Amino acid sequence: MFVAFIIGLLALAFSLYLACSTLKNDPGPREIADISRAIQVGATTFMRREYRVMGLVALPFALFLALVLSPYVVFAFIVGLVCSTLSSFIGMSIATRTNGRVAFAARNGLSKAMNVAFSGGAVMGMAVVGLSAMGISGVYLLFDLLPFTPEPLAVITGYSMAASFVAIFVRIGGGIFTKAADIGADLVGKVEVGIPEDDPRNAAVIADQVGDNVGDVAGLGSDLNQSYTDTIVSSLLIGAAAQSIGGLYLGEKSVIFPLLLVAAGIVASALGILMVRMLSQKGVIRPEAVLKVGMLTSGVLSSLGILLLSHFYLGHLGAFYATTSGLVVGLLIGLNTEYYTYKKPIRFIAESSEAGAATTIIAGLAVGLESTVLSMILLGLGMIIAHHFAGLYGIALSGLGMLSILGINLAMDAYGPIADNAGGIAQMSRQGPEIRHITDRLDAVGNTTAAIGKAFAASATAAASLSLLTAYSEAAHIVRLDIREPRVMAGLLIGGVLPALFSSMVIKSVGRTAQLIVIEVRRQFREIAGLLEGKTQPDYSRCVDIATRGALGQLALPCLLAISVPFITIFTLGREALAGLLAGCIVCGIFLALFMANAGGAWDNAKKLIEGGELGGRGSLAHKASIIGDTVGDPLKDTAGPSLDILVQLIATVSLVFTPLFLRMLK
Amino acid sequence: MFVAFIIGLLALAFSLYLACSTLKNDPGPREIADISRAIQVGATTFMRREYRVMGLVALPFALFLALVLSPYVVFAFIVGLVCSTLSSFIGMSIATRTNGRVAFAARNGLSKAMNVAFSGGAVMGMAVVGLSAMGISGVYLLFDLLPFTPEPLAVITGYSMAASFVAIFVRIGGGIFTKAADIGADLVGKVEVGIPEDDPRNAAVIADQVGDNVGDVAGLGSDLNQSYTDTIVSSLLIGAAAQSIGGLYLGEKSVIFPLLLVAAGIVASALGILMVRMLSQKGVIRPEAVLKVGMLTSGVLSSLGILLLSHFYLGHLGAFYATTSGLVVGLLIGLNTEYYTYKKPIRFIAESSEAGAATTIIAGLAVGLESTVLSMILLGLGMIIAHHFAGLYGIALSGLGMLSILGINLAMDAYGPIADNAGGIAQMSRQGPEIRHITDRLDAVGNTTAAIGKAFAASATAAASLSLLTAYSEAAHIVRLDIREPRVMAGLLIGGVLPALFSSMVIKSVGRTAQLIVIEVRRQFREIAGLLEGKTQPDYSRCVDIATRGALGQLALPCLLAISVPFITIFTLGREALAGLLAGCIVCGIFLALFMANAGGAWDNAKKLIEGGELGGRGSLAHKASIIGDTVGDPLKDTAGPSLDILVQLIATVSLVFTPLFLRMLK
Repeated sequence: MFVAFIIGLLALAFSLYLACSTLKNDPGPREIADISRAIQVGATTFMRREYRVMGLVALPFALFLALVLSPYVVFAFIVGLVCSTLSSFIGMSIATRTNGRVAFAARNGLSKAMNVAFSGGAVMGMAVVGLSAMGISGVYLLFDLLPFTPEPLAVITGYSMAASFVAIFVRIGGGIFTKAADIGADLVGKVEVGIPEDDPRNAAVIADQVGDNVGDVAGLGSDLNQSYTDTIVSSLLIGAAAQSIGGLYLGEKSVIFPLLLVAAGIVASALGILMVRMLSQKGVIRPEAVLKVGMLTSGVLSSLGILLLSHFYLGHLGAFYATTSGLVVGLLIGLNTEYYTYKKPIRFIAESSEAGAATTIIAGLAVGLESTVLSMILLGLGMIIAHHFAGLYGIALSGLGMLSILGINLAMDAYGPIADNAGGIAQMSRQGPEIRHITDRLDAVGNTTAAIGKAFAASATAAASLSLLTAYSEAAHIVRLDIREPRVMAGLLIGGVLPALFSSMVIKSVGRTAQLIVIEVRRQFREIAGLLEGKTQPDYSRCVDIATRGALGQLALPCLLAISVPFITIFTLGREALAGLLAGCIVCGIFLALFMANAGGAWDNAKKLIEGGELGGRGSLAHKASIIGDTVGDPLKDTAGPSLDILVQLIATVSLVFTPLFLRMLK
Repeated sequence: MFVAFIIGLLALAFSLYLACSTLKNDPGPREIADISRAIQVGATTFMRREYRVMGLVALPFALFLALVLSPYVVFAFIVGLVCSTLSSFIGMSIATRTNGRVAFAARNGLSKAMNVAFSGGAVMGMAVVGLSAMGISGVYLLFDLLPFTPEPLAVITGYSMAASFVAIFVRIGGGIFTKAADIGADLVGKVEVGIPEDDPRNAAVIADQVGDNVGDVAGLGSDLNQSYTDTIVSSLLIGAAAQSIGGLYLGEKSVIFPLLLVAAGIVASALGILMVRMLSQKGVIRPEAVLKVGMLTSGVLSSLGILLLSHFYLGHLGAFYATTSGLVVGLLIGLNTEYYTYKKPIRFIAESSEAGAATTIIAGLAVGLESTVLSMILLGLGMIIAHHFAGLYGIALSGLGMLSILGINLAMDAYGPIADNAGGIAQMSRQGPEIRHITDRLDAVGNTTAAIGKAFAASATAAASLSLLTAYSEAAHIVRLDIREPRVMAGLLIGGVLPALFSSMVIKSVGRTAQLIVIEVRRQFREIAGLLEGKTQPDYSRCVDIATRGALGQLALPCLLAISVPFITIFTLGREALAGLLAGCIVCGIFLALFMANAGGAWDNAKKLIEGGELGGRGSLAHKASIIGDTVGDPLKDTAGPSLDILVQLIATVSLVFTPLFLRMLK
């Protein structure tokens, strides 16, 4: 346990080092620094207000937890709240300070810019894994040392609950913010007024850039922080219960092993990150190749570490096979996503665009549907393999395996929006075409790493929530969970439709908020004299404010849904129905999340393909159709899809955390 | 059993009477009759070729069945093949003879036209239920009377297999045909050349009309014929096994009761149909109201019949409650669909169209997702209620309850495409605006009944396949089907993604075939002199031919998938995994089918709303956007969505039918 704590601390220190090294880069001339600064202020304002709302809800919730469960759980909850909030805030903070530096570094070539962007993203990667490892092992150690408190495992679920709690606000709020601003900016700017994307005359353009940071950096970070935390916590619980539920059981070692595994993964991630920095400092040219080498290095090192741990610490290689199966499944799902969002299928969508927008959409839907197939089958087979080697404990371990190199995965994911932002800043500050060319190149790679990141987040959600489902049914003393039982089957059907309800709510929220932004941007063009001619500046902060209020105001309903469903289900249909509901929600939720992420990514890159000059290039009919495809995909891939990860895990976590209460009340 | 046979015979006689009474109407002047004749020839040609391909596949399949199962099963299979083929052929035949008569009857007012269209649809409704009831009870009686053959229940699954077999070809083949022709016709006609829909100069226009008949009449008929047959057969099996699997068991009565229930439903449907005819002959004006009264009449009468049967024959009201719960769930799902495809949500989509096609699509996706929620929850709750009153047997009965008034439901569903065709014929034969107005009015109602029909088909699929799942797991001697078992969970995940794979295949097939039609229509415009000026006629039959070949050629891959999946699953992952796969396939399949049907219907009617003069009316930007929405929805609602019903039931039926083989081989 101590090892995990120390490694977590070291990861945090490494994150700090990366942050300093990133910030040492030149922020660039005033025209760049000013825009970067505006984005920074906007993002910080949004996050601060988001945290305030979160705090206001967390307070009564903590009291409720204290009343119905125990004050110790509340302590874990608060520690979790602090760690999860910090990691998303650090990531966002550094990202907003990196974007301008990347735009400036692009003057010194692709490798240099790439190095800065990746290092900025790596800050969040290491902060998330470091804080999570420290927080969980810290809480565990504390309750283990204090003799008069309950079992550490009984309170640790509070930490999980906190990670989910933060993720709702940061992921869903950020997701609504980013797409409302993006769509709002495009609808008036590109469609009505006819000015290019990222044009400084558009009042919503800063809000759009802010959105990339609060949605795709902080949001994705909190999403994967939740998966990471949930997987670790459920591994600990299942490790402790392995004796009763079957599977590999090796005493206390089963409980310690997951944290050692996490520590090994953190070290491997850090080495992979160093490798990427080294390669890009040396000027190796292709960014895709550099990132892949880094990822593979981490994967191989992590496997090696797990092998050594399994052999020497656990003395049983089953755990190694189970963990590695998860790691391999995660990598394969990444490759599958890369194929569907970067290779042949996007050409199919682009070619379909020649017959108009309708065929663009139909082609994208077909590609999105197909793209989920291999991933879900891999998840299923991975489970069977993991179970074969180490029982239900093995399934939890395979989830950990998938997430073990989260540090470098997250670094790659956060690199995407930073590169995107850098491109926007280069455009807004009217840099020359050679700079734009480099940032575009970085951005295209970033699009794919972002799509991979989303597919990875969905798969990690599957792994985490399957473990949570096991942990819940164990805690709820469910003996028989037969699909033929009508309550279980009804749970499956009802759970299967929750993701649909949730995503429809979120999509509508984006639409409503975007509408408000459209009205504001139109008003500014009408009322501010000389704006369209570029003589005066628009009032950027108003749009940031509208997006903030829209995002935070529309959070309530979907959150209430996610939190109340387990309560309603268990008290009307019973414990088994809730387990069935979880299973249905996992299956349909992961399917929809993968579908939305991949279809959205494919539409985006099909547009990029045409903009690259193929099939008529910019301005052609195919291009117009592909823009419609991209716009449809935006709220799917950046808001609704990722928010399903939160829904699924939140329902699972609430079910697990409140089981003691349920059992008391059902008696 | 005899009762069911006789009632089935009477239903067939009633269908014949309806057919004669429909055909007695004046076929109209030559310009109408000629077009109707061309549609008829095209549809018959397609169906004949479809049956030939089906026959060619059925022969080796029957041999295979005879080898691995028994020749008795093959006998039931062949009877099923004949009955199912006949019912879809009768329905399509009469529909293609009714369309022109409706267009002509429109001269005598709305009620008269409505009466003709509905009577034409009712022919198929009564033919499907009559032939199915006769066929199943006939096979049962035969094997019951012959002393030396196996138990009738052991062979009856062959009949089910046949219904699925026919449904694949007729539903999926017809679905690809209809949408490829529709999209192909629109892409060249409306978009490139700028002529209106259903313009006689468009070479694909007859193929489009043929498509309505082979897809929406014959296809839907075969789809619901499959659900009806599967539900009856699985009720018989579960009724016989009720003793061992728990639930209401009343000896042989449990086996006879489902067929009596079917007979009662057929009588109630016939009375409802007579009611609709009476009201529309009397000239009651609103078609929606007339149809609703007919449906409610049948529903109430059917309930009453079931009440009497439960009380006097079974002596146990549990069966009545279980059956009625299914009936009520079916009606509520219909109302839910009506709301989402006819009420406020379509206004939301229409208003979103003002901001362009992207928001039309996003709004439709949100509406479609939301529309599934209540239906799935109702299905889940209905199951629990049915199980409460009569155990697993009750769940089978609730499925029968939902389908009991299928006769009138199908009449309403088939009415839609007939009215649609009548409108097309009126346009092509250049009838006056007052005729067009009446056919438009009938068509708008038909759009909604068609959407309700699709939602109903999906729900019926859920009911039928849940019963098949129970019957399969009983036949495969599965004791424990725990979700936590990794094989079951992996099955859920893999099954959950099959509908996505299947619909993506089907959507792509539509796209490919539509492309061929586009090329042909373009060629005719280019090469046939005087075509665009209306001086010469295009060669309609070429487009029918291309659509036919496209549809039949692209069937192989999805069918092979559906049939091979149970084999592959059971031999690699085992019996429990196959059961899990079925459950996952049911949950995701029904969800996607409902989503596609409702989103498609909502887009279609949002377009109709704008064409009715709102939000700028025809030619406005909103109208253009809404056309894109409608085009996207078309392959979803008319091809991919309905084909999922077939997929789900086919996998379930194949699993059930081949279980004896599986067990032998697994030993």
